[in-house]
Amino acid sequence: MADRREVREITSPSNALLKVFRRALAEGVTREGWLAVEGPHLLEEALQAVPRVAVERVLVARSGARKFSALLARLPQEAEVTHVSDHLFARVAQTESPQGIAALVERRADDLDAVLARGDALLLAACGLQDPGNLGTMMRSGQALGATALLTLEGTVSAFNPKAVRASAGAVFHLPIFQEQKPGRLFPRLRAAGVRIVAADRHSPAPVVQADLRGSVAILIGQEGAGLPPEISREASLLLSIPIRAGTDSLNAATAASVFLYEVARQREFRY
Amino acid sequence: MADRREVREITSPSNALLKVFRRALAEGVTREGWLAVEGPHLLEEALQAVPRVAVERVLVARSGARKFSALLARLPQEAEVTHVSDHLFARVAQTESPQGIAALVERRADDLDAVLARGDALLLAACGLQDPGNLGTMMRSGQALGATALLTLEGTVSAFNPKAVRASAGAVFHLPIFQEQKPGRLFPRLRAAGVRIVAADRHSPAPVVQADLRGSVAILIGQEGAGLPPEISREASLLLSIPIRAGTDSLNAATAASVFLYEVARQREFRY
Repeated sequence: MADRREVREITSPSNALLKVFRRALAEGVTREGWLAVEGPHLLEEALQAVPRVAVERVLVARSGARKFSALLARLPQEAEVTHVSDHLFARVAQTESPQGIAALVERRADDLDAVLARGDALLLAACGLQDPGNLGTMMRSGQALGATALLTLEGTVSAFNPKAVRASAGAVFHLPIFQEQKPGRLFPRLRAAGVRIVAADRHSPAPVVQADLRGSVAILIGQEGAGLPPEISREASLLLSIPIRAGTDSLNAATAASVFLYEVARQREFRY
Repeated sequence: MADRREVREITSPSNALLKVFRRALAEGVTREGWLAVEGPHLLEEALQAVPRVAVERVLVARSGARKFSALLARLPQEAEVTHVSDHLFARVAQTESPQGIAALVERRADDLDAVLARGDALLLAACGLQDPGNLGTMMRSGQALGATALLTLEGTVSAFNPKAVRASAGAVFHLPIFQEQKPGRLFPRLRAAGVRIVAADRHSPAPVVQADLRGSVAILIGQEGAGLPPEISREASLLLSIPIRAGTDSLNAATAASVFLYEVARQREFRY
């Protein structure tokens, strides 16, 4: 069956929709709250989100229309598709080698109370990270290794930063995300829900491998370089380190988070 | 005691040494084989290398001369120090916020036979990775988690790529590195030395946690996205995967390498 969708076409470089896409792809999120994604892989991941997220608009370069016909045919009915020349698409795209497709997509709407109610919650809490690539890699590892949500404290780079979304490899659509959390409200809420608060602290003498991490836990990951500020570490009931070779610096923040997630997954026998 | 070193000064933007630095910082290595590093942290790490590496030249921005006086005082005698204006330094630097110090440093000279002779070798072998940030993160994790060398197969991004050096956080000076290895020579050599060849293969049904990784091993890490080509996987005596949540994509290549390293370190009880 042919796709009967009405397709618009833009030829003017000053078109308002192009401006919306350019800005959204640079900033990550539109003023209305739509998440901007570039490339077929991220759009595929968005279409696989559970529960479903709406696709508002799709921008396709002329050369992409045929290449992505299968993907375009699977778009939900509400999605408005607009074609542009490859030249105009390249001016809107933020990647060095634009793949010819971009979209504005709804963000997940999740309920933190529901996440906390699980007896085996595994929350990854980014506390002040500034590198969007690190935050994206943490989302990717979290989704793969069984995290049940990503939390970010206020002052942390946005999980919807375009670099974070790319590094997440689509995890941004699968992992419940709760941003801009205030420590004074979040930590009492975690404790009330019976979630143990565990800080990744490279100076702790207690190695992660000797702690029992099978109940509900939140793993706090600090800023690159500086680590967790004392007022946040203080909230943890357990400070754990990854034992590293003497005289070496430390692990990258996203790597440390991934090793903690792996250790929790291992202790839970990889039952996700 | 005052530093009696003779300090040169450059004021012309067309000075040949500035061109050497600009090119070296962009490409990572000079034609003569010196490694170019930017920022005090990497230079500190170079000074801590064992065995010692020579420092050929140091370029200091005017504003850096006082800020880095302690570091400059610790330079080896052979190092030639040159001052430039902050403006000229910024034109040479490759980082967005230049810190005002850069250097040309000797690379480690290591002997692969000596590395292979250890009974507990832990070799990280990058097979086709293209992202310098990933390779640098692998070096950083390798250094922290007990790797005894980094090997790269021909066709892999250079470990001396400036982005790799930065992401390594100095590990490039501490970890023996053997690049551009030819599979036809390397794998027989590893086998002859009694090193078990283990492929990180996300499609393998054998989980890494169930293998005994306490003897000498080489961990093969494939390219981002594509993974290991079949002709390389075939060389491995063991294909192992990290068990991840069903329906999820995979881990980032550097993250997967780090989890393998952690699992080996854990089995060896973190005795580095």
